[in-house]
Amino acid sequence: MKRHGHPLTRRGFLNAGSAATVAGAALAAPIARADGRPQGDPRRLYGERSPFETSGRSFGASTAALTTGSSRTPLQNLFGIITPSSLHFERHHSGVPTIDPAGHELLLYGLVDRRLRFSMAELRRFPSVSRVHFIECAGNAGREHRGDPGPTAQLSHGLVSCSEWTGVLLSTLLREAGLNPSGKWIVAEGADPGRHSRSIPVAKALDDVLVAYGQNGEAVRPEQGYPLRLVVPGWEGNVNVKWLHRLQVTDQAAMSRDEAASYTDLMPSGKARRFTFEMDANSVITRPSGGQQLDGRGFHEVTGLAWSGRGKITRVEVSADGGRTWREAELQGPVYSKALTRFRAPWVWSGEDTQLQSRATDETGYVQPTRDALIAVRGMTQGPDGFNHYHGIKAWKVNRDGRVTHV
Amino acid sequence: MKRHGHPLTRRGFLNAGSAATVAGAALAAPIARADGRPQGDPRRLYGERSPFETSGRSFGASTAALTTGSSRTPLQNLFGIITPSSLHFERHHSGVPTIDPAGHELLLYGLVDRRLRFSMAELRRFPSVSRVHFIECAGNAGREHRGDPGPTAQLSHGLVSCSEWTGVLLSTLLREAGLNPSGKWIVAEGADPGRHSRSIPVAKALDDVLVAYGQNGEAVRPEQGYPLRLVVPGWEGNVNVKWLHRLQVTDQAAMSRDEAASYTDLMPSGKARRFTFEMDANSVITRPSGGQQLDGRGFHEVTGLAWSGRGKITRVEVSADGGRTWREAELQGPVYSKALTRFRAPWVWSGEDTQLQSRATDETGYVQPTRDALIAVRGMTQGPDGFNHYHGIKAWKVNRDGRVTHV
Repeated sequence: MKRHGHPLTRRGFLNAGSAATVAGAALAAPIARADGRPQGDPRRLYGERSPFETSGRSFGASTAALTTGSSRTPLQNLFGIITPSSLHFERHHSGVPTIDPAGHELLLYGLVDRRLRFSMAELRRFPSVSRVHFIECAGNAGREHRGDPGPTAQLSHGLVSCSEWTGVLLSTLLREAGLNPSGKWIVAEGADPGRHSRSIPVAKALDDVLVAYGQNGEAVRPEQGYPLRLVVPGWEGNVNVKWLHRLQVTDQAAMSRDEAASYTDLMPSGKARRFTFEMDANSVITRPSGGQQLDGRGFHEVTGLAWSGRGKITRVEVSADGGRTWREAELQGPVYSKALTRFRAPWVWSGEDTQLQSRATDETGYVQPTRDALIAVRGMTQGPDGFNHYHGIKAWKVNRDGRVTHV
Repeated sequence: MKRHGHPLTRRGFLNAGSAATVAGAALAAPIARADGRPQGDPRRLYGERSPFETSGRSFGASTAALTTGSSRTPLQNLFGIITPSSLHFERHHSGVPTIDPAGHELLLYGLVDRRLRFSMAELRRFPSVSRVHFIECAGNAGREHRGDPGPTAQLSHGLVSCSEWTGVLLSTLLREAGLNPSGKWIVAEGADPGRHSRSIPVAKALDDVLVAYGQNGEAVRPEQGYPLRLVVPGWEGNVNVKWLHRLQVTDQAAMSRDEAASYTDLMPSGKARRFTFEMDANSVITRPSGGQQLDGRGFHEVTGLAWSGRGKITRVEVSADGGRTWREAELQGPVYSKALTRFRAPWVWSGEDTQLQSRATDETGYVQPTRDALIAVRGMTQGPDGFNHYHGIKAWKVNRDGRVTHV
């Protein structure tokens, strides 16, 4: 089929014929109801989805035990930038503890003037903030690196989610405790059975770290750390310590298992990068994406998500011809710092085989690299827990029959 | 007790003593677990709240039948500006229909060049937008007007909620159909058994009205119109037609029951205002609010929600002395137009009886009135469905024993 200029510039939406002109008689057609009852369902104190909506988190093959492993957000089915709390991805090592908030306390101790212990009620008295931030597992998209790409956006990039978090700035609590000048790190520990623990530099703690009790308007969900989670904006997920129980101010990092071994980046030299906290600029097209089916040539909206742990996304470009030409997508505003950013671009599909790709740029000027460029620097060696911080450009193939598949 | 200056200007947070200094031994205390198991709960495809979180919608006394009436959002328990979809208020007249999206169609007809019928899949192909907007029932806070104030923020102001809505601009669909110059109104009709219907001026339809299929990242919830809702930003809730099925372009309003009788404002003259669409600037303090208990004098954060159907909230003032003095609260940014806006103000409670009030101003310069000022214009006469568009300043009484009650 003949191509008429750049595939993203042709407009016309459904004039190409996908919306049917209505015959007059159809206006009087009866309204279809699934159950045939004259009245609807009874009321609920806490609402539920339509029974026709079944999209769920998916669990990886490595999650044989019911209480460990990871689950992925179905990015391809979501709208806007807020991830429904019920679909936020999970990654944990020793299950989800059931914690009674009435008995939960946060301890703040170490190199401070006053050791403090906060009940949940006491934390609620402090000045609060609400911030929209993504949380992403360091291992997100790792299988793209090893050349075994995820067949859907959920399986390729579903270890990232975005919420409106509410809580107290950690800087507020540190001011209350009186930070000792010799305090350089904060060691955060969770109340899970495995006592997951990570060290965070004081400079970050004083910048934008949140002690969060709220997520998307209600209490933080159990899998996300109920009743208290440390939210460390833009930094790899495991630093965002869940079921937060203790904060110790120290003069050096704790060198816990999860920072000395697990969450490191093994380089081609054989050395490992440690404390690679920031998640780099990344993006994925969520529609059309793998597993979906286009219902015909003509106008389609291309949409997806971009994010950077280093600040705001400033630009997303989309290619509809396998990377030969790129066109700037529209960003849904306002764009938040260290948050999922929705992009949208018009696209007219000719009906031929093609590839769709997205490329994000953040406010530091960093441009999302190709897989080849990323591998040229970081090599193909897997670390002890796979490859962390992969963020290469993702391509989806649109097949002539409308099926969308991975490349 | 002696007052030291303005009650909102004294800082110090918990230095007054509510956070306990930690004895060294407490740091080694065992982590309390409610169930005593070594591992946590198994994974879920679609997450749930902690069993310790039980806040729900409340149903009014007028909702004797299970399938009609209204439910209210527990505003006093929410954080930030997004209302969890499971807690969005409801108001409906003939239950919640169960609609299979595979068979649902939107008809656009009347004074247009091309009658069109859109399946859900076809609507998904159009350029989409996501916008954060509140929806508020015209009758919200009506009992405040008649001097029977709600004892909690949920019961006084819980007929307002706020979501990130995603869908197609109605202007896009009207352009596709070709709007006839004689078309002045759009009559929107739902697929509920009662075929709820309202008329909207074309100017509004071309401005910011959305045909929404997404709510807070996932599909619109059944009680909110699954699979399709008309979102008419800033206008009274019943104009935001749920289970949207038909849009007819006409040269005059349909004068349906819900615009000719039910949703009108009866004035002291005996005449009724009709088509009073915009919800006026309003606000309510959600913490401390009725039914809550302060756990001691000293620093507390005062927080609440403000909104206006005429644009952005530009200012919220808080009084902690029964309206004698007012101080500007901090607004959570970015402030969206026609959206709930979170405000926060520091407050040091002396331990004496006092009153807390909030007063909102929107970008048109309109200032939320007192109840007396509102009644001076609109009188005490109730309409056929109660008093609509009440938006007077709300006061909460803080009692010496820490109980918060209505005034």
